[in-house]
Amino acid sequence: MNRKKNLPELFDQIFDHWSPKVVGEVNDHLIKISKIQGEFLWHNHKREDEMFMVVKGEMEVQLRDEIIPLTENEIFVVARGVDHNLRAKEECWLLILEKARKKD
Amino acid sequence: MNRKKNLPELFDQIFDHWSPKVVGEVNDHLIKISKIQGEFLWHNHKREDEMFMVVKGEMEVQLRDEIIPLTENEIFVVARGVDHNLRAKEECWLLILEKARKKD
Repeated sequence: MNRKKNLPELFDQIFDHWSPKVVGEVNDHLIKISKIQGEFLWHNHKREDEMFMVVKGEMEVQLRDEIIPLTENEIFVVARGVDHNLRAKEECWLLILEKARKKD
Repeated sequence: MNRKKNLPELFDQIFDHWSPKVVGEVNDHLIKISKIQGEFLWHNHKREDEMFMVVKGEMEVQLRDEIIPLTENEIFVVARGVDHNLRAKEECWLLILEKARKKD
């Protein structure tokens, strides 16, 4: 059954960084949460936008030509095809919304 | 250009209750924010799920057979076709994700 999701409680069940957990679905999109710290890797999603929202802490979305610093209750949507990387000096809690994967 | 969205700043530009404002898009979905207080009205969306996240305050999603109380950083997805109503005793700030409308 589709219950409500208490994000702080769900984050408390995550012990690893860069290990996103699916906490819900809305239409063809997955609602994920992830604790991040350090740097991820440069990549892009050719056909899909990806939404990031900081729930706690601070992080940066690196684009090729600029850096987008994000703090609590800030949202940034990385448009499809745009190279990006994520990094956080201290642990940061992220809410992520992205399309459920289909085979390309 | 797609800039980051600072939700508190965007909420500060909303002066009416039940007057959702589109603050972004991710794929075929709209990211909306709304200040709510009082009661909305019973309705459903036949073909689309709708995600609610409380950014500040408290509210209730009423379903026909239960009431889902939501507080800050809690998410509830109303599945397509499910009758629901929203209500909040005090002003509450909501983040809403829903599919961009197409003509039915």
